[in-house]
Amino acid sequence: MENKEIENIIIIGSGNVATQLAITLQKAGKNILQVYGRKESMAKCLSSKLKVDYITDLKHLQRNADLYILAIIDDALLDISANIDLDEELIVHTSGTVSLDVFKDHFKNYGVFYPLQTFSKEKNISFDEIPICVESNSESNQWKLMKLGEQISHNVKAISSEQRKLLHVSAVFACNFTNYFYSIAEELMADHDMPFELLLPLIKETADKLNHHLPHEGQTGPARRNDQEIMAQHLKMLSNYPEYQDIYQILSERIKRKHHK
Amino acid sequence: MENKEIENIIIIGSGNVATQLAITLQKAGKNILQVYGRKESMAKCLSSKLKVDYITDLKHLQRNADLYILAIIDDALLDISANIDLDEELIVHTSGTVSLDVFKDHFKNYGVFYPLQTFSKEKNISFDEIPICVESNSESNQWKLMKLGEQISHNVKAISSEQRKLLHVSAVFACNFTNYFYSIAEELMADHDMPFELLLPLIKETADKLNHHLPHEGQTGPARRNDQEIMAQHLKMLSNYPEYQDIYQILSERIKRKHHK
Repeated sequence: MENKEIENIIIIGSGNVATQLAITLQKAGKNILQVYGRKESMAKCLSSKLKVDYITDLKHLQRNADLYILAIIDDALLDISANIDLDEELIVHTSGTVSLDVFKDHFKNYGVFYPLQTFSKEKNISFDEIPICVESNSESNQWKLMKLGEQISHNVKAISSEQRKLLHVSAVFACNFTNYFYSIAEELMADHDMPFELLLPLIKETADKLNHHLPHEGQTGPARRNDQEIMAQHLKMLSNYPEYQDIYQILSERIKRKHHK
Repeated sequence: MENKEIENIIIIGSGNVATQLAITLQKAGKNILQVYGRKESMAKCLSSKLKVDYITDLKHLQRNADLYILAIIDDALLDISANIDLDEELIVHTSGTVSLDVFKDHFKNYGVFYPLQTFSKEKNISFDEIPICVESNSESNQWKLMKLGEQISHNVKAISSEQRKLLHVSAVFACNFTNYFYSIAEELMADHDMPFELLLPLIKETADKLNHHLPHEGQTGPARRNDQEIMAQHLKMLSNYPEYQDIYQILSERIKRKHHK
């Protein structure tokens, strides 16, 4: 049997991922047949961006699309799946954390199509460099999804459910926690009449360095140098911020231990 | 008295900051008269980059430069200062943490010229966007240093010693700790056969977002959403990494508290 590329797509969901993915796939020449959104205002908004019909009731879902993309919050995946009735059509979710198996009892052809990026609805984003993590229940589905991924990104990878979950934890460290640290710096600086923008070049360079060195090679700072005096000074300066003092101490200890074994 | 711009500069130090600063000042048309390095190999290396003389003994320091830049490690500042004998000449250090006062008993004209960036010797870096934090002991010295800063950067600020120290603590959070989290992600991914590069677009976008939103506005992730189930899953996945499990728990708790008051 010859594999047929995916052409006709239905988007189920109308949030950030649904929006960015739909816009990108349409630009790549794919035919978006329909969008579904639980909330009419959001479904309408996405449908007007794409100039395609929207529905708010899954009973009106068109049949015979090549691919149904479920880009909705994790908690809703099981519920929504139960209300979708397909024969042979391929369905995927876009979640970083939900197993492929979530579809096992409902569908014949299914997969995961997970773009590893943080999306906002307003800021259109190029998918070129975004890793697309693909997984599916058959070789032929895998081929279709890899092929589709390659039409929007240079960076398509076969990633198992277990790997994907681990990737998600790693992203929490590398992005969510990192952003929280940016916000600690923001607070400290605001309290001392300095604009957060002062740190932007340093933050940018810290991230840019990763194009040349792995992070463990590029570690700098007082804890890396085991500079006790500076660390003691810093802890003293944080005495009005016990929650940050505590984090400073734990992380400095860990960095020291990692680099001064 | 009319203020005279700084033209003739001597660089004391031959590490990363000394190297990048000297190259940049020379490119901006300043006259580097001499470089000093404690280690001959390093002094020689910098002097050959700049095509100027080097010394390894402060006794041979030329007099009458407009500015002496001490770009050396914090711990050596007091010692080196004690071996420098100046009359009216202006001297600055480039440290993020050392007070202006370190020079008080040794010199008449002194200041701080602190470029807020992470430097490496090999990677030449543009100073254009780098914040230069300036402080000094007189209005006329302040004018000279601000003027000099503006010739290499668009981003020159008067920053007091207290603010500068606070800025340095903030940078530890926003850069050193952030890089440590990159390295946690690196380790987790390597252990599960995934290249760290998969995370680069996400890391870049997390930093880029700061051009549009303050960090506290851009916080995302399971803790921000208070998604108990995902957090429990993640903690379970980290069971072989008790040190990271522990950090995951503390930071998730803090983020939750900050955003769900």
